Amino acid sequence: MLNRLGVTLPIVQAPMAGVSTPAMAAAVSNAGGLGSIGVGATDAAGARAMIVEVQARTVRAFNVNLFVHATPAADPARETAWLDGLAPVFAEFGVAPPSRLTTIYKSFADDPEMLALLLEVRPPVVSLHFGLPSAQIIAALKQAGILLLATATSLDEARRVEAAGIDAIVAQGVEAGGHRGVFDPAGPDPGLGMATLTRLLARETRLPVIAAGGIMDGAGIAAVLALGAAAAQLGTAFIACPESSADEGYRKALAGPGAYHTQLTSLISGRPARALANRFTALSEMLAGHCPPDYPIAYDAGKALNAAAKAKGEFGFGAQWAGQGAPLARTMPAAELVTTLAEELAVAQRLAPFGAP
Amino acid sequence: MLNRLGVTLPIVQAPMAGVSTPAMAAAVSNAGGLGSIGVGATDAAGARAMIVEVQARTVRAFNVNLFVHATPAADPARETAWLDGLAPVFAEFGVAPPSRLTTIYKSFADDPEMLALLLEVRPPVVSLHFGLPSAQIIAALKQAGILLLATATSLDEARRVEAAGIDAIVAQGVEAGGHRGVFDPAGPDPGLGMATLTRLLARETRLPVIAAGGIMDGAGIAAVLALGAAAAQLGTAFIACPESSADEGYRKALAGPGAYHTQLTSLISGRPARALANRFTALSEMLAGHCPPDYPIAYDAGKALNAAAKAKGEFGFGAQWAGQGAPLARTMPAAELVTTLAEELAVAQRLAPFGAP
Repeated sequence: MLNRLGVTLPIVQAPMAGVSTPAMAAAVSNAGGLGSIGVGATDAAGARAMIVEVQARTVRAFNVNLFVHATPAADPARETAWLDGLAPVFAEFGVAPPSRLTTIYKSFADDPEMLALLLEVRPPVVSLHFGLPSAQIIAALKQAGILLLATATSLDEARRVEAAGIDAIVAQGVEAGGHRGVFDPAGPDPGLGMATLTRLLARETRLPVIAAGGIMDGAGIAAVLALGAAAAQLGTAFIACPESSADEGYRKALAGPGAYHTQLTSLISGRPARALANRFTALSEMLAGHCPPDYPIAYDAGKALNAAAKAKGEFGFGAQWAGQGAPLARTMPAAELVTTLAEELAVAQRLAPFGAP
Repeated sequence: MLNRLGVTLPIVQAPMAGVSTPAMAAAVSNAGGLGSIGVGATDAAGARAMIVEVQARTVRAFNVNLFVHATPAADPARETAWLDGLAPVFAEFGVAPPSRLTTIYKSFADDPEMLALLLEVRPPVVSLHFGLPSAQIIAALKQAGILLLATATSLDEARRVEAAGIDAIVAQGVEAGGHRGVFDPAGPDPGLGMATLTRLLARETRLPVIAAGGIMDGAGIAAVLALGAAAAQLGTAFIACPESSADEGYRKALAGPGAYHTQLTSLISGRPARALANRFTALSEMLAGHCPPDYPIAYDAGKALNAAAKAKGEFGFGAQWAGQGAPLARTMPAAELVTTLAEELAVAQRLAPFGAP
């Protein structure tokens, strides 16, 4: 599947909107993996700039990731209550909360300009997170020769991905950092672990599976290939690379004790996402009983709170997304990391069987 | 480690008190794996009978599992409130809740008769769940030549296991069925997935790691060996074996839709445990705000409720423990399952690398 695009290693660098960069994606692709950029939090113009930058840095295949969440419903009463709940924390940093919250970016399902851009620039791979766009949009992307990936966190979602004609499934385990790709965040979430989900999808669907969640080294990649995956997607492993846009607070937190206590929280953005335990995730008790506004409306408040805190030197309100493998993160250039992963994978695949010393 | 005991396959059948049987353990050991019995929910006399039965059925090594939870604290007010909360459900089956709850079994840490029995019969392997007994008890077991395993769900717990002189760690991921081995159920639980935990412990401790949680077939075993584990422990894979003591309701539930929606719940026993979604796990909304009595005092109520429901033909209040791999469970004799797992493992370890068709 990916190897038909010239990707020589079974390694996908996770898109990580706000953390990955065109430089990172190009470095990964140039090293033989599949580099990704996340354009879900920008508009068509922003996406164009990022894609152009990737293309300037590599001739290899790369992936452009989009958010396909349900259209958020504005709910002024809920949003006001949420801001009231956060007000004491804003006050700690000497500012008032924003007077109102806005939908800070569109779902790809509602963004014809983004679709037009993709059909024009035709990135080799497009990946979809949070759900699926209309059959018309999928058909148009396929018609343009774009390979399509979509995230699933359960067999039900994987069956919907398969039925929609997507080319491969990103099987996102509960260990994964950042936003959980669940289609309906209000529905029950069995929280499947990566290995179990990968094996279930490898056995019960016909699509290639790209395993994601907690994979940090070549042994982890070897493990998911043994489970029947076609490739592994690693995000947290790349956060500490110099090409990432993670700020100093985030990098320090990743190397600190919070790495052992990542938490799924909906407080930051309005959708469940896994972050390093920090002052933001610690608000869960204070905000118990409050229901955050729809994603990404809640994120408008979260970003404002982080900005206010950072202005006073407090980095603990950042959206410090990270997966459970965070304690195994390494700091090295992205290309070197890909090469290291490939070497480790080769070693792991020659691993001595049971009984050897 | 296990191969020094004559265990030829990297397969441990999980103890599963109340589900596994001496016949199952012996069948697994005779087939080359490590069979286990769980004696945590019985007393020394009950344990002796089970061990004698295993010994009558196999000359191979086997494992005896013990619960080492903190001594439960009786709290009549909390227990009465809990029974009041459950009363409407008991009423549905025409009975009153028990008038009081008791500590239905002892922690191994508080059971000198159990220790004396183990030192007398000297099972080849003893495994410890929920924590560690005193240094004196560990020393006595080691002195008796018993190989010791202990469950860890985090690196912190693993370091305590290592410091205590245990021989190997059972790395229990959040996917695992039955009781989560967390030492302190009141503490924060990062809920690490099996693959991430296994890799973390393989890299950060010096002990052999036995990976547990969501492993259902030979591909899963190959995956954990690639992660650096010495062996895999499978529980849910054995529930449907004819040697298990699972009742018909449990077997049916395992084959039903609840298998896709296992849930961690403390409602049944007072400690977090993963069960098939059923009528008991569905009580979580009704019982929100109630704090269950200490483990295993709450389990006294849970077992009484199940007995009342079963008497009226309702199997949905059973402690239908199962891991996230439940949809991949197979019904076959335990020995045949072990042989099948070994064959699948051999195939998975020869798996074609990335790029093959």
